[in-house]
Order: sequence, then C-alpha cells, then structure tokens
Amino acid sequence: MGLFQDKGIVYKPADEVDVGPDSHESYLQANVKAPRMAGLLVKICVWLMELKILGTFLMYMLKRNNLFYKLVINAEMAESPLFVPLNSFQELNEQEVQLTSTDSSPPERVQAAIDCLSSPSKTVPNGLESSFRHWKIMDYHTSYSSGETTPSTVAERLITAIKESSSPPLDMNFFIDSNSKDILRQAAESTSRYQKGKPISALDGVPVAVKDEIDCTPYPTTGGTKWLHRIRPCKADACCIKRLKQCGAIIIGKTNMHELGAGISGINPHYGVARNPYDSGKITGGSSSGSAAAVAAGLCPVALGVDGGGSVRLPAALCGVVGFKPTFGRIPHSGVLPLNWTIGMIGILAGSIEDAFIVYAAINGQMSSDENPILQPKLYLPLLKSINRISGIRLARYGEWFNDCRDDIRICCADALDQLRQNYGWQIVEVTIPDIEAMRLAHYVTIASECTTSLDPYMEKIDKSESGWDVRLGLRVYGSMSAKAYVQAQKFRNRQMQLHKKIFERADVIVTPTTGVTAYPIFNDALDTGELDYINGAALVRFQIAGNFLGLPAVTVPVGYDKTGMPIGLQFIGRPWSEPTLIHLAYAMQALRISGFRKPQVYYDLLRNGRL
Amino acid sequence: MGLFQDKGIVYKPADEVDVGPDSHESYLQANVKAPRMAGLLVKICVWLMELKILGTFLMYMLKRNNLFYKLVINAEMAESPLFVPLNSFQELNEQEVQLTSTDSSPPERVQAAIDCLSSPSKTVPNGLESSFRHWKIMDYHTSYSSGETTPSTVAERLITAIKESSSPPLDMNFFIDSNSKDILRQAAESTSRYQKGKPISALDGVPVAVKDEIDCTPYPTTGGTKWLHRIRPCKADACCIKRLKQCGAIIIGKTNMHELGAGISGINPHYGVARNPYDSGKITGGSSSGSAAAVAAGLCPVALGVDGGGSVRLPAALCGVVGFKPTFGRIPHSGVLPLNWTIGMIGILAGSIEDAFIVYAAINGQMSSDENPILQPKLYLPLLKSINRISGIRLARYGEWFNDCRDDIRICCADALDQLRQNYGWQIVEVTIPDIEAMRLAHYVTIASECTTSLDPYMEKIDKSESGWDVRLGLRVYGSMSAKAYVQAQKFRNRQMQLHKKIFERADVIVTPTTGVTAYPIFNDALDTGELDYINGAALVRFQIAGNFLGLPAVTVPVGYDKTGMPIGLQFIGRPWSEPTLIHLAYAMQALRISGFRKPQVYYDLLRNGRL
Repeated sequence: MGLFQDKGIVYKPADEVDVGPDSHESYLQANVKAPRMAGLLVKICVWLMELKILGTFLMYMLKRNNLFYKLVINAEMAESPLFVPLNSFQELNEQEVQLTSTDSSPPERVQAAIDCLSSPSKTVPNGLESSFRHWKIMDYHTSYSSGETTPSTVAERLITAIKESSSPPLDMNFFIDSNSKDILRQAAESTSRYQKGKPISALDGVPVAVKDEIDCTPYPTTGGTKWLHRIRPCKADACCIKRLKQCGAIIIGKTNMHELGAGISGINPHYGVARNPYDSGKITGGSSSGSAAAVAAGLCPVALGVDGGGSVRLPAALCGVVGFKPTFGRIPHSGVLPLNWTIGMIGILAGSIEDAFIVYAAINGQMSSDENPILQPKLYLPLLKSINRISGIRLARYGEWFNDCRDDIRICCADALDQLRQNYGWQIVEVTIPDIEAMRLAHYVTIASECTTSLDPYMEKIDKSESGWDVRLGLRVYGSMSAKAYVQAQKFRNRQMQLHKKIFERADVIVTPTTGVTAYPIFNDALDTGELDYINGAALVRFQIAGNFLGLPAVTVPVGYDKTGMPIGLQFIGRPWSEPTLIHLAYAMQALRISGFRKPQVYYDLLRNGRL
Repeated sequence: MGLFQDKGIVYKPADEVDVGPDSHESYLQANVKAPRMAGLLVKICVWLMELKILGTFLMYMLKRNNLFYKLVINAEMAESPLFVPLNSFQELNEQEVQLTSTDSSPPERVQAAIDCLSSPSKTVPNGLESSFRHWKIMDYHTSYSSGETTPSTVAERLITAIKESSSPPLDMNFFIDSNSKDILRQAAESTSRYQKGKPISALDGVPVAVKDEIDCTPYPTTGGTKWLHRIRPCKADACCIKRLKQCGAIIIGKTNMHELGAGISGINPHYGVARNPYDSGKITGGSSSGSAAAVAAGLCPVALGVDGGGSVRLPAALCGVVGFKPTFGRIPHSGVLPLNWTIGMIGILAGSIEDAFIVYAAINGQMSSDENPILQPKLYLPLLKSINRISGIRLARYGEWFNDCRDDIRICCADALDQLRQNYGWQIVEVTIPDIEAMRLAHYVTIASECTTSLDPYMEKIDKSESGWDVRLGLRVYGSMSAKAYVQAQKFRNRQMQLHKKIFERADVIVTPTTGVTAYPIFNDALDTGELDYINGAALVRFQIAGNFLGLPAVTVPVGYDKTGMPIGLQFIGRPWSEPTLIHLAYAMQALRISGFRKPQVYYDLLRNGRL
C-alpha cells in the first residue's frame, strides 16, 4: 500500500531499556479494533475482504487501526533480525538435573522419569486423596501390572466413552477421528505384554490422544479441514508418535482443533465445536481444543497438541489441565503439519505435571538425522527428589500485565502466588516487560507470513468454499503481509529476546495468569461460520506470545475456578532450556492446589476401580 | 497481486536430486527480460514504475517475465526455510591448518600469517621478478624496516597520486573521500614507530582503502549516496577497521561504490563513475568499485569491500586483482551499513592472495560480545609450507555453467584449469549444480526484502530525487516483495544448501570463471542516470550467488586478459569454513600465472625503489 502509512515509533535499543520495577516503559493494553462477528456478518466481511481493490484497502485499514504499521512494520529499531528463536542463552546448569544420554531409547527415558518421580509423593500435603484428581499414567500402569484391569478392558470402556461423548445429547466433539479397531489391536498387544509380565514402559497401555495436526497412522491428518488430507496424505507417524508407540502407549484418535490452527476458540464448522467438559455450553479454547478437553474429561491422562500462539497452554487453562510447551526445538517437529517454521512447537496436555513430564521424557530430543544440527539439545530430566529442595526461586511479575485480566482471574492467580511465597519462601521480583502488545502483532505478522507460504500451494488446489468462513478471512489477512513486515517482525523478535534476557538476569521465571478470560459461552450464530472475536481472542493470547515468538518454555497449571466454575490457569515462562525448573515449579504449585480440584461435568472413569 | 499469477514449478526434494555429471537436471540460462536503458529512458521508466496502480502492475509483469513466480515465489518445495546461511557443515579438519587462539590480538594474528608465508616463496616458479606485480604488504614493511623509505614519504606520494587520479584528465573517481591530514598523521605515527624499531606489525604503515559502506572515522559513511551520512552519522570505527588500525595500517580514504550497493556497474551519478585502471573508458564492476580499482592502480596493496552479490569478487576480476570473500559470519559485520543481514559479508581486495591472507588474519573472528554466538568460529590460518604439498584436490566443474560466458573467458579459464591439473595433478570432477538461475532470483528476493527493511526508515526522511535514477527504480522493485516471496526464497536457500552439500561430498571446491563478461565500456548516456543493463548484470553475477546466498567462502584470482587487454578472473568456491583450502588454491593458481601479469594503464609506484 504505502498510500498514507502510519509513521512508525522509534524504539530504544534493548540495552538501554530499563526492565526494573520503576521503568518508564508504559504498558499498552491490547488495542483491538474489530467488533465480534458471526453468522451472516462474517460472510459479508469475507466477501468484502476478498474483493481485489477494496479488500486490499480494507486490509490496510484493519492493520493500520490495529497499530501494525505504527508498532511493527514502520517502527525503527537498532536490532538485527532474529529469524529463529534460538539464542544466546546457554544450556543451563540447573540444580537437581540429571542428564540422560541422547542415545537412550524412549522407554529408557520414561523409566528415568519414573525414577525421578518415585520419591516426592511423600512430600505432597495431606488431603490429596480426598479431592478429585485425574487418573495418572502410574494409575494405569499399576492397575495393569497388578492385574486389576487390562488395557483391553480400558480400551473397550474408552471406545464406548468416546462414542457417547461424540453423540447426542452430549456432542462434545473432542475427536475428529477415532478408530475402534486400531485401539483394540493396540490394547490387545499391550494386554498380552502385561500378561507376560513384560510391559515396555510405564506408558504401555496408556491411552494418548493426538491433535489432528500431527501425523499418526492409520489416521489422515486433516488439520481440522475437510480437504488437507486429500492433498497431503499422511504416510508415516510423526517422530513423537513413533516414540510414544515405542513406549507402548495406545493412540486413541485424532482430536478436534480450530481449523488449520488459524483461531483459538475451537469452533470448527466441519467437525463441530469442541465443548468444555466443565460446561458443555462453553468453548475449550484452541487450537488444541480436543486434546485439552479429552484430558479434562478423563478419556486419557495425556494428549499431544501443537502450540503456535498459546494453542496448548490456553485450552489447557480453559479446561483445567496442565499444558506444557517445551523450548523451541526441544521436540522434533518432523511429521507435524508445517503450518509455520519458527513459531510452533509440540506441547503436552496432561491431568498432572508428572504425566506431562513422563511424556516429555519419552518424546524430547532431536533426531540425529535432523536437518538442523543446532537444534540438538541434550536430553535432561529433573530430579524431583523433593519440592522443598528448590529454594530461592525468583518469580518475575510485571504488575500491570499480570493484572490485565478479569478480576476473578487476577485474585485467584495472586492468591496462588502468595501460597508459593508462603509455603516455599520464593521471592516475587517486580519487573517491567516492555512492548508486549507490539510483540503480539510481530508474532501475528510472522505466523501469518509463514502460514501463507506453507498453505498457498494447497489453497490453489481447492475451492475457497471448502474452508470455514472465519478461516477464509484469516487467510486473507495472512496473505497480506509484505517482506518488509516480516523482516521487521524478526528485528522486533531480536529486541524482545534481548529484553527477556535482561528479565532472566533478575529472575528465574516469569509468572502470569495463563489467560485474561476464562472459557466463554458458545453462541449458536457461530456454529456454521465460526466467530471473529478479536477482543476475547486478544485476552486469551495475552500471556502466551513469548512462549512462541521467543521460543521460551512455558507451563500452565490449574489454580482455581471462576465464579461460574470454569478453570483458571497460572503460567510459568522459563528461560530457554529450563524445562527442569518449570517442571519443578509446576509440581510445587500443583501440590499446593491439588486438594481443591473439582470434577468436570463430563468425566469418564475408565479404570472404575474406586480410587477416584 | 495474485490476479493471474504464474503457476510455480514443483522441485524434487534435494536428497533425490542427482548432482553427478549424467544428471537429468537441465541448465537454465539467465532469462533476463529487460532491455538496456540509460538517460531519458530510465527516467520515464522510474516515473511509470512509481505510479501507484500501473506501477504495481508493471512490477508484477516484470517479475513474472523474469520467472520470479514460476521459479521461486509459487514454487513447491519440501524443504523448510533456512534464514541464515549457517548450516550443518562442520568446522573442517583441514590439512596443514594452524589454529590460532580467539583471544590473540590482530597484530599477533598478522605475525602468525607472516610466519605461514615465510617459506613458500622458494617454491614459486622462476620468472616471478621479470613480470609486473603489485607491491605487497611485505614490500612496504621491508622498505620501511630497512629505512629505504618511510610511511610519511609513501603517504605524501599517495596523496599526490590520489589527487591526480581524482582530477581531470584522469577522473578515475576511485575515492569518495580521502583526508590528507588524517593520512599524514597516521603516517607520521607509523614512521616514528619504525624509527624506534618498533613497528606494531607487518601492516604498520601499509596503506589500506575502505569501501564507503564501512564505518571509518574521521569519514562519514555515505554508502555512495549524497544523504545517508546526514541521517546516519558515523560515530565509531567498524570492528574490522579497529583491528586494522590496531595493526598500524594507514587508512587512506573511502572508496567509491555503486550507490547503496544497489547495482554492480560502479556508475555513480553523485561521485562520478569509477573507472578501470586497465582502460579508463571501461567500468570497474561493483559495488566495491573504488576498492578494486585503487588496488589495481597500485594506490594500496589491499582494500576492504562488502560482498552482497559478488560485490567484492566481480570488481576484483574486472580490475585484475584478488577478491576474497570469507564464509558468512567469519568477519564481524558490526559497523558495516546494515543494508541486509543474511547476505552481505566483508571481503578483501588485494594485489596478491598473500596480502588478502594477511588482512584476513587481522580482521577475522567474531567479537566475543557479538549478539549472535553461533557466529563465533575459531580463527585459523593455513600453513603455506609448500604449494606442492596440497595434493589430491578435487575441483568440481559444472560444464554448462562454466561455459556460459564469453568465448575468451571460457578459453582462458579452461586453460588455467589445465595448468592446475598438469602442474599439481589436481583432479577435475564433473558435476551438475541444479537451479542456479532460480538461486539468482531467490537471492534477489532476499536482498531486496532486507534492503527495503533497512532503508525504508531512511528513505522516509529524504526526497526521492536525492537518489540516483537507477537506484530509485531498484528500490521500487526491492519494495515490492511479499512475505511469502521472502519465506519461499529461504526455503529455496535450504534446498540449494542441501544440493551444495552433495557437491562437496564429491569435490573440495567448485571452480568457475568469476564473471561471464569482462569490463565493458562506459557510455555517456549512463553518467547521470546510471544504466539498467540486466543482461550484462546477469552475466556479471552469474557465478557469484552461492558465495552470498549460501554464505560459502570464495576467492577470485586473475588468470589472464581478453583480447582487448581487460582482466579475467577464475573463482574457487569452497565449503563453509574452508578458507585455508581456498587460500592454498588461490596461491597455487597465482604462482602459475604470476609471470603473465600486465601493468594497468593507470598505475602508481609509491615505493619507487626500482623493484617493480
């Protein structure tokens, strides 16, 4: 365009920016200029935006009003572009960390994780068993090992439960596809291994669901569309799936997702809206919608998602489960739909941090044959000897940002912080993190540019009408980015990385609410067209972006419920490669809250052994 | 645009491509669709292209006709993007290589280089002294050390020579700026050091010229423009300049360049066209035009340039000197105009490979404080014990590409190859390098996108008319790239990197002519507007792109002259970090040709000691 572009602001070089509590950097609230739209309005909007000349102009105005030009595209920055969120952080020498060899097998790594977990349960506060909790991997493994039940029995109950959840009156739409025959085959093999007394690992026979963005035979990979699998057949298991299968895990199906990961409500017009187990009238969040909901509903202790803009952590928070997104590059991305290259990462949704940790142990570590050798971090596992042994943790809190959420979320998360301080003596460090809203825009430019590049060859082969309406609009915006916008966003990425480096000199992790709002109602007008709700959208991703744009590891743990009973999550964002610290912290947080967990409205008790 | 875009071709995955001599991959000659333009035609063209709607359409047609959409932007590729040309090549364990410590000082590294060079002169064929040769660094150092002459004496002669070269009737326009007072001051200090018997290094008192793209006090950095230095003042020496000054080198001025490096003819409307010392009616090539010409004319044994698309190697070849571009990241880029971030590299222009090597030793090695830690290769220097000791070298030659140049160049370069084979027993390995022309386009997309990003903040502050006409047109094309085009170009970069990796399994270096044409005449109609000559342009950059887009190190050595007496260069392209091998090969080639060197028409004998 360039007709009357906004002048860009001039950013101070990162090394001159004060990130302390008394910084003059101001907090900019999300300046979303777009009304909620659904139904016919969305269709009209798509029609207008797809016009050649007028659409281009509207696109420009949309980006201008949302400050893309001012804060990112025309901004002046001294920093060079950073294209891939690898950075100058070193592998950490963390306390209590056990390195495992990169050539250990997934089952060996699962065992190493179990060994780490064996002692701490003693330190969990009393009252644990009196409250609701999700079945854990070890519950399955122990029940199978003792002969109390078998993987085949669980599989049968699971198949029934999945069918029920997918049918009226529930219509929870957790799954896009679930193959009963395949589940029973895997379960029979696992049952036979347990009968011989030779399970492969603690994951043997444990049900795991997989977001439909990850290749997993015998399923097609739809990416939440009705067409992608026709053009891009799924030929083999993704690396992470191979590793899970090596451990004996039972893949129970492909979970529902926001179409092409291009939104975060989880309203999918092709496979139905994914519904929240805590209230089936509310959204799950997304885009790893079904994975979060299936775990929350007790169909599996753990599920895989992909996190490109909070897509693992935010549905986890909305559905009351743990969401864990490791450092960029920590888990091989091969076999995941290449919707983008520098943003997305496989993440883990689980009923507990222990289970997220076990699956992390199984799937992390780059393949030696991987094309990018700088992405081959050592594997390592934290020793959870005792939560009380992690002393002196400094939690960075940026007050204005932390409080930019609904009141009940703020109070609940502040209370959780207080508990951490009181119980463990951890320190809250007040900081200022500049330009968070601009980072959201720079991240958007980046993911938009990369998605357009990856999807265009497919889009040429299909009819526009095969895509959902909200996605059509999204793709139109995605395709409007200039090369300059992209490179500017990468300059901004470097600057933010430098600023976060300074934050991590002051603290070990950054702590935030996971989302600015909790799960909100599903309205009928959105069922066919999806909805455009950029205000709620901005509130959902408000605390997510550093985890993607800068590749930082992050974890969300459930810490309470809002007044309508919907879950609230607290997020820890770590420095690169600090997974052990994050797992420690999440465990410590979970231990304090575990007696307060509430059972979702929709919950399946697959083990049926009275322990729940 | 997207109105009626070309369908892209579908590339085979790199690992399925045959790079052997019998490959079915075909060679595509540059398909340049643009007539030579100069004078009024350029102005009309700029006027049309700067129109909002029609200009955008013309831009699209221009890119479409030049196959940008077909070969790059809409092409289908399996590879992920590679944004920075660092790659999976390991630091080589090369024969005969001496590692120097990264904390050695520049003078220590110069001494290490001198030590490497001390023995081989004995192995140089007879006849060396009977032919023209450029004064070397060691000639200066020896003359100063013996008291035969002093840096101050040389400086006075130099100042006279620079003035003469810059005035009628010669008007060679080698320099944009040269400060006599600053030269005399540096020379006096150096003279005093020699008088005390304490020169800092062999570079003490040696004149060095610097492309006006590199920050060097007390000069402004114009980038060949009339305005850049007003907006972006030069505040400190670039890292490479600091290191040269630490060694005692005398900076003699800022050399002429193609405006903003946005062209390769060296025709600069603001500072005059840089003229070729071998024929002042012909171009020098560019964009490091004055640096190449100043070395060729004997004003300094060595000069610095910046190579973003052959900008060091091609003027070196056209002016009959050595041009050496190390691996991307080998030399710190700080203090160089950030016209782009993933393409350009400081390079060295010198009268001999030994001198290029000495300066390379002084300036290579990333600073420890550098923002990008993956760009901190170890320093190492080759031991030139004897050229005869480098046995078994395999030179990859892609026949169709090698021969895609003017007949006299082809014959001259083929003859040089024959000599290498006969004298050293090296082996010629026939290979196929696919998609070289598409790589030129992908490189163009990349440099265009990055230049637009870096220059836009400046361009907003000036009047368009302050830029030259050819540059205005160039910047218009530069600014037209989409984010998708940029990311696609990076996917292509990865694919080409993989293909080159396969080539380097078969051979140690790739050998090509340096350019497809020699220096061509300067026409009067181009003096004010510059010229648009994309056909000669494509022939000049034909063999350059892998050195920039893939970051490979490359060196050009003069190997002969065309029928009009203009120099011809032969280029070796190495695998990443293989500078020692390249320096060995260039030395070996130079040793064979040294008795055939001809003196340029314009040449200054600063030492005047009868050795010439």
